[in-house]
Amino acid sequence: MGIGTYEAYVERLKKMKPNIYMNGKKHGRDEDFMRGGLYVIKQTYDCANDPKYEDVCTATSHLNGEKINRFTHIHQSKEDLLNKQRMTKLLCHRVGGCIQRCMGTDALNALSVVTYDCDEAVGTKYYDRFLKYLEFCQQNDLTCNCAQTDVKGVRGIRPHEQPDPDQYLRIVDVREDGIVVRGAKVCNSIAPYTDEIIALPTRFMGAKDAAYAVAFALPADWEGIKIMGLPGLQSKRVKLKAPVAEVGDVESLTIFDDVFVPNDRIFLNGLENPETVKFAGYLALMFAHFHRHSYTGCKAAVSEVLASQATLVADVNGILNKEHVQEKISHIIGTAELVFAAGEASAYKAVQFPNGSYVPDEILTNAGRRLAGSEIYNEYSILADLAGGLSASLPTEESYYDPETAELVAKYTKRNPEYSAEDAHRTFRMMENKLCSPFSGAEMVAGVHGGGSPIMETITMMSRYDLTPLKNIGKYLAGINDDIPRYERPTMTPRAMLDKFKKTEK
Amino acid sequence: MGIGTYEAYVERLKKMKPNIYMNGKKHGRDEDFMRGGLYVIKQTYDCANDPKYEDVCTATSHLNGEKINRFTHIHQSKEDLLNKQRMTKLLCHRVGGCIQRCMGTDALNALSVVTYDCDEAVGTKYYDRFLKYLEFCQQNDLTCNCAQTDVKGVRGIRPHEQPDPDQYLRIVDVREDGIVVRGAKVCNSIAPYTDEIIALPTRFMGAKDAAYAVAFALPADWEGIKIMGLPGLQSKRVKLKAPVAEVGDVESLTIFDDVFVPNDRIFLNGLENPETVKFAGYLALMFAHFHRHSYTGCKAAVSEVLASQATLVADVNGILNKEHVQEKISHIIGTAELVFAAGEASAYKAVQFPNGSYVPDEILTNAGRRLAGSEIYNEYSILADLAGGLSASLPTEESYYDPETAELVAKYTKRNPEYSAEDAHRTFRMMENKLCSPFSGAEMVAGVHGGGSPIMETITMMSRYDLTPLKNIGKYLAGINDDIPRYERPTMTPRAMLDKFKKTEK
Amino acid sequence: MGIGTYEAYVERLKKMKPNIYMNGKKHGRDEDFMRGGLYVIKQTYDCANDPKYEDVCTATSHLNGEKINRFTHIHQSKEDLLNKQRMTKLLCHRVGGCIQRCMGTDALNALSVVTYDCDEAVGTKYYDRFLKYLEFCQQNDLTCNCAQTDVKGVRGIRPHEQPDPDQYLRIVDVREDGIVVRGAKVCNSIAPYTDEIIALPTRFMGAKDAAYAVAFALPADWEGIKIMGLPGLQSKRVKLKAPVAEVGDVESLTIFDDVFVPNDRIFLNGLENPETVKFAGYLALMFAHFHRHSYTGCKAAVSEVLASQATLVADVNGILNKEHVQEKISHIIGTAELVFAAGEASAYKAVQFPNGSYVPDEILTNAGRRLAGSEIYNEYSILADLAGGLSASLPTEESYYDPETAELVAKYTKRNPEYSAEDAHRTFRMMENKLCSPFSGAEMVAGVHGGGSPIMETITMMSRYDLTPLKNIGKYLAGINDDIPRYERPTMTPRAMLDKFKKTEK
Amino acid sequence: MGIGTYEAYVERLKKMKPNIYMNGKKHGRDEDFMRGGLYVIKQTYDCANDPKYEDVCTATSHLNGEKINRFTHIHQSKEDLLNKQRMTKLLCHRVGGCIQRCMGTDALNALSVVTYDCDEAVGTKYYDRFLKYLEFCQQNDLTCNCAQTDVKGVRGIRPHEQPDPDQYLRIVDVREDGIVVRGAKVCNSIAPYTDEIIALPTRFMGAKDAAYAVAFALPADWEGIKIMGLPGLQSKRVKLKAPVAEVGDVESLTIFDDVFVPNDRIFLNGLENPETVKFAGYLALMFAHFHRHSYTGCKAAVSEVLASQATLVADVNGILNKEHVQEKISHIIGTAELVFAAGEASAYKAVQFPNGSYVPDEILTNAGRRLAGSEIYNEYSILADLAGGLSASLPTEESYYDPETAELVAKYTKRNPEYSAEDAHRTFRMMENKLCSPFSGAEMVAGVHGGGSPIMETITMMSRYDLTPLKNIGKYLAGINDDIPRYERPTMTPRAMLDKFKKTEK
Repeated sequence: MGIGTYEAYVERLKKMKPNIYMNGKKHGRDEDFMRGGLYVIKQTYDCANDPKYEDVCTATSHLNGEKINRFTHIHQSKEDLLNKQRMTKLLCHRVGGCIQRCMGTDALNALSVVTYDCDEAVGTKYYDRFLKYLEFCQQNDLTCNCAQTDVKGVRGIRPHEQPDPDQYLRIVDVREDGIVVRGAKVCNSIAPYTDEIIALPTRFMGAKDAAYAVAFALPADWEGIKIMGLPGLQSKRVKLKAPVAEVGDVESLTIFDDVFVPNDRIFLNGLENPETVKFAGYLALMFAHFHRHSYTGCKAAVSEVLASQATLVADVNGILNKEHVQEKISHIIGTAELVFAAGEASAYKAVQFPNGSYVPDEILTNAGRRLAGSEIYNEYSILADLAGGLSASLPTEESYYDPETAELVAKYTKRNPEYSAEDAHRTFRMMENKLCSPFSGAEMVAGVHGGGSPIMETITMMSRYDLTPLKNIGKYLAGINDDIPRYERPTMTPRAMLDKFKKTEK
Repeated sequence: MGIGTYEAYVERLKKMKPNIYMNGKKHGRDEDFMRGGLYVIKQTYDCANDPKYEDVCTATSHLNGEKINRFTHIHQSKEDLLNKQRMTKLLCHRVGGCIQRCMGTDALNALSVVTYDCDEAVGTKYYDRFLKYLEFCQQNDLTCNCAQTDVKGVRGIRPHEQPDPDQYLRIVDVREDGIVVRGAKVCNSIAPYTDEIIALPTRFMGAKDAAYAVAFALPADWEGIKIMGLPGLQSKRVKLKAPVAEVGDVESLTIFDDVFVPNDRIFLNGLENPETVKFAGYLALMFAHFHRHSYTGCKAAVSEVLASQATLVADVNGILNKEHVQEKISHIIGTAELVFAAGEASAYKAVQFPNGSYVPDEILTNAGRRLAGSEIYNEYSILADLAGGLSASLPTEESYYDPETAELVAKYTKRNPEYSAEDAHRTFRMMENKLCSPFSGAEMVAGVHGGGSPIMETITMMSRYDLTPLKNIGKYLAGINDDIPRYERPTMTPRAMLDKFKKTEK
Repeated sequence: MGIGTYEAYVERLKKMKPNIYMNGKKHGRDEDFMRGGLYVIKQTYDCANDPKYEDVCTATSHLNGEKINRFTHIHQSKEDLLNKQRMTKLLCHRVGGCIQRCMGTDALNALSVVTYDCDEAVGTKYYDRFLKYLEFCQQNDLTCNCAQTDVKGVRGIRPHEQPDPDQYLRIVDVREDGIVVRGAKVCNSIAPYTDEIIALPTRFMGAKDAAYAVAFALPADWEGIKIMGLPGLQSKRVKLKAPVAEVGDVESLTIFDDVFVPNDRIFLNGLENPETVKFAGYLALMFAHFHRHSYTGCKAAVSEVLASQATLVADVNGILNKEHVQEKISHIIGTAELVFAAGEASAYKAVQFPNGSYVPDEILTNAGRRLAGSEIYNEYSILADLAGGLSASLPTEESYYDPETAELVAKYTKRNPEYSAEDAHRTFRMMENKLCSPFSGAEMVAGVHGGGSPIMETITMMSRYDLTPLKNIGKYLAGINDDIPRYERPTMTPRAMLDKFKKTEK
Repeated sequence: MGIGTYEAYVERLKKMKPNIYMNGKKHGRDEDFMRGGLYVIKQTYDCANDPKYEDVCTATSHLNGEKINRFTHIHQSKEDLLNKQRMTKLLCHRVGGCIQRCMGTDALNALSVVTYDCDEAVGTKYYDRFLKYLEFCQQNDLTCNCAQTDVKGVRGIRPHEQPDPDQYLRIVDVREDGIVVRGAKVCNSIAPYTDEIIALPTRFMGAKDAAYAVAFALPADWEGIKIMGLPGLQSKRVKLKAPVAEVGDVESLTIFDDVFVPNDRIFLNGLENPETVKFAGYLALMFAHFHRHSYTGCKAAVSEVLASQATLVADVNGILNKEHVQEKISHIIGTAELVFAAGEASAYKAVQFPNGSYVPDEILTNAGRRLAGSEIYNEYSILADLAGGLSASLPTEESYYDPETAELVAKYTKRNPEYSAEDAHRTFRMMENKLCSPFSGAEMVAGVHGGGSPIMETITMMSRYDLTPLKNIGKYLAGINDDIPRYERPTMTPRAMLDKFKKTEK
């Protein structure tokens, strides 16, 4: 069956070997610190099983025609890309932020495209291997992590030039039955509670970086994988339960401490054939691209959630109809709309690749993601502005129930009479969670960096955008050229970069 | 035949009665001050006749299946809306800015939707009348102006409350064979060189404003129409001809000095039936909406043109590859992409109306237009930044040919050796045109206000956006509500405002 | 002696009656949750006793010529105002943010000016009473809180119109020996660990609000004062002690549950004489004004601290010399410089008031404070940008010491070889504290709202700025007026508002 | 006498040899195209002779104690620097923009400091020579231009590396009685109507650039100086005279076509002594620094003028009291205040140099100038926003007097009844001048680039700002360093760069 349940997922986690290191101890996946992350992932199973969300949260497997969870699906059409955006947005609404599971989806989609293209070009046999793995993920509705960002050591020099060669994940041994890898992946959110970890390269690799051109998938508790965990949680509520307080995650630094990868789990190996090395960068970009396209869904949702909270707290404060308040909320809404529209327009321009996948337009995807990233702190600033200082000085929850203070704090934190004291309290408790908690701090950082920081999107845009025809418009208008050919920017995808890269190599 | 020629258009203009007032004289349409505007409109005829642009610049009339100029077409599909955007962008590239003729197209489309709806609701007979007029425009490929913005007098009070009742265009007499109107429309670009002037209301009208609920079309030289003209032109080039220097317009204040409108040219008359009054606002919004959607095409082009010129001048200056230069250009490109994507996504969400027309999504359209408007001066700032001060202190063109100075000025204004002295000169001459001319100043002002200034788009967005389901997301996350219904923002169009307005009235 | 010690301060706190309500219990001032706030206040005593800081941290009392802690000083000159700014900035550097104690200083200065002016105008006797209280504060080097912001209930209506009349602090009983007050003050930082609480009005009061025109000072543990506390603390470090982790505060909602105020502690009482009522607003503004001037010192420091941390983490990341990094850091530095310069220029323009105090220029002070407030989230965004995602996913501190992981995490979180693994760890631990903690979230909120949110500063600026002479420049240039008088903006202080208010009253 | 008259100035100009090349002809200084520039310079003479402005517009010569025009004064105190700022602002108010004459003042001040320091260090005799020249300027109240910006040819390579060695002004011959120079200076505003042209280097020069290390002063019509002129003028008004329409300038590219400079006019000559070469960069920076400090006066005025015009037009439009209008105007005012305050605070921190001059703080000066430059287009955007589209489509002036249209256009361009039709007309005519004219376009470009574009100020700030003590704050807070020394940023001046440069050389 291609649609799993939360219960089955939790059962699988419980059976895993403890390999999460925190606070000086080794932890399994059955402890309370997991609660926030599990709450989020739960939505991805529940909604796939809920007829209300079926149209967006499920898909039809191109492998066997079965109904599957869309999180394990390879996009077969523009409609699939649009539905992924919609699913992402809808689920993000339910958790008030990142739905977390898209990274696995994006890794599967990137592998599908790139293993096929690599096989075609080089004659390797990765794609069939990948399809078997994909079927396994679809059948069991597995939650996958994507471990991409290497720790990178000294900036500005290439992997093989590093004083410590392990600063990028690399192959340290090749055996008959597989390879041994060493290195670490950072900012590796949700690794502590996924079934599988998919490791992909983080950048282009040159000929001398062949040992670094490696991609594979392994169970998250595999021998030698050591996960340094960092839970992101809201304080437990005493009485006033609320989704915003249930949500959390466990971030990680995932260390591959000489880990054996069996052959059937290897999807790229630069030591196998030097021609495959350049596919490392192609794969890195392809994952980043799918992931940024996912962000056009989730970041739109993040902005909408912030707008929803800004609207609510402004209403509780009795200032919702003020001109400047409307203007500020409209600013967040406008960003949400533009980011989502960038993703939609990218999807409509998507190109079918040789493996059958649809890949959205890269420049628009990056333009959308960049806008979101450059606005995120500003959106929190607006929320803080409209919420007011009470967000940062709210009496503790217990004070609302302590007989000596309950009546007083209720009296003095009520505002707009249309909201009960409890609803005002709930609203400001949410503001505290949203504006003044480790988890919200991490959300802001993730808003800047997740999927690539704004400067990476500028670089991606400008490395892909062909300035020549654009410059020709200028030359025509200046009278330097006699005419301009009719110009419409062609759809760009990471493949263009691969081609460019090939030319440069020679 | 539904595709006219520039020559036929010019012939029609020449036959018109002089009614353009400038510099203390009355002018006809055969003088040199028209050259800039004619140059622009010429493109709209030439490209419709050019097989290279046929796919976007022509359309199939829904009246008779004939091939027509897309500027006279009523959008029959989402594809039509997308093609209008593409046509607009492509033509704007050719003139380095506004293509000017879309206002007529947008007026025709608004009338098509609203006259039909009005007839349905009230029983009037405007739609058939409109169709006859439309056929006349299509058959002759007429260029139409839209006169919308009233001079408005005292702000903050309604038309009928004005001390001078003529501050909004109004009906001052009703006759058997027509009506007599009085008032003036401002910022009425291109009226001096269009075949027809279509007058539409500028705002919602209340019951007491019935005489102001009026829409009609008349030939531009009709008795009583007095056009106060203001040519926007670049200085004539001595030697270095260039498209950027050919382009211009004639702005106007169009005065209706007790003008008779025959019955077959009236498309809304609030005195005919009090039920029609509310359609004034609906028509005002519908035109603004179509026009803002056109802006998602032209403003994207305006940004691309600025990016093209920034790229060229940065290259001539030898700084194109600097990190900060790339970042600045990418900022303009990103805006162009997002604005155009907003228009595309609006088109994909378009709704078919009872008359058969497709109407794009209003919130997205406004979000896109607002972004463009709020960025325009910043984009010129980037252009000025990359061009440098020479743009504002270039020797006169003659100095490049005066034997005493020619060699010296060529020597001292050459920069990047990849560009000849003449090409550098051409580039900076274009910078002078673009940064330091009355026409470019007007372009900046139009970038802010054309189609509605940013604050109008904020108001439109917020009056249409339903904050309740959004607020419910906040309530759900705070634990105030138990669950949220699945929420996706529905497509919004000006019709929603009409419905809202109807409710308010009661 | 006018310069106290931290030890004496702590002794005084220990003797106070428990009246801090948190987590369902009543707490005294001898518990661990106070540690962060005490760490900060400690600097204000230690530096006053440190010869290195003596020049800025001490002053000469105008009451008796004794050397006192500058935090208890009434500014007697422009130099005093400049020194207050410098002291604030220097101490803020030491705690990496708000020095917390300035609110008391600003309250004393506001009372000094306003009680004198009120006595002069109305014949009350507040100033002498105030001087006795001031001497008591100076002699004992007391730390004072200022309780200003009322909870405000329903926005947009005045205090006496509130359905619940206690939403603004008010006099509920007048006795021979004093008054009884009821109400609550919110966002009342540091009240849990100050000697004294000074309560001031939060806004202008009309004639019907006379009972709300009240100001007084009381010991923080006075009968009936109930402090709802909220500690802001960083997680305790296991091994790597660092100032950034020591710093904290305790925020509060301070409830006055029918509190008796003896006559000698009352500094404004609107029920005593109706003429005094208008001094409520004057006092509110005067405190806000002094407080915003303090912000030109502390916010400059906050920006410098963020720039210092951005510089450090960029260096640890090995990217400090990148063009875009330098540009981003320069942006923060530029803001710090401009904010501080606004405060300095305000001080140089300061006006001596009848009581002998110097009051800085209001428009400049607000312009500086506003810039800081509007940039604060952006500055955190830059810090997050340069720090990278590791800030939000750092392994727990214990992982650096757990034998099973210590070597690995050190290896994989080291970067620029010029920094040891421990220093890199220290730097990212600080980033976690600064970007992802409840305390840093509260710092961001305080950056927006402390001393008045940006919109309040805009309102203050515009209510004080006389647009008439400015408009006259426009009229002169347009030829409407024949000439302009020489125009230099006069120094503005809250007094102008008092005068304006008086006129409006009539 | 040290205070001249406009009449004497004009007489001097009339006597000059024609050497202004425009439109293919050679022009003298007695033609109408000069009118705008002369109007501006006139204010600098008239106000120095007007008792109302005497305190700021005159100064006491340190050479002989005579009263002189402040534009010829060497700043002898902080008060002088503050007065220069005030003078600049006041005069800019009168012309609605740049007062143009400060460039000469700044050149004289830079020469005063640098020639003295050079003599001290190297043993040259420039300072005495300079003093004689200064006295000549003071006695005759001469208007001086500063020719700094070389045309620069190929970017990114040094002067002596240029394929065409004349792309930076250089010495091509050394004679007994002087030197011969060749090259061209661009963006050389006001050269066509100054008495003298002072040429200074544009950048640091290395040992091989010795021939480029040259500074001198010559009469503007000196043999071999060829001025390529570009007049900036508003259209002549028919009836409605107004200062805004009188103002203008003549920009230029000034070519030195093998020009002989007699010894007594040479202030730096790198061929005379290799040790002097490094003073070229010092002089370049010192002029830029004084000029940017002047900008803290004039750019504050430019913003105030824009705010004054925004206020007026908003009032004419009847929207002045709208919340968003007030917010926008306050934004411009806030910038003006902050920019001016940066200059004031720089002045208060000024350092006395060996020659006796006062030199303001460099980082603050640059922070202030940068803010102004980065806001200028945004301020025009606000003006365009509040003025509305009529600014770009106003009927021609004659239409207001043509009997056939006069009444109609008056009727239809009147708005707020508090303003007569003529005053409304005057206001919008000013808007046309300000938003849509070649001169206003040039003003915007100059707002970005004059005195150095924003990126140059960022580079200057960051090359001067010592990040080490700042980074130490970060290290202390992180626990890397045990303590921080008390840190206050020292005053920085271009001299620091000279010292840095000296170290680098070795």
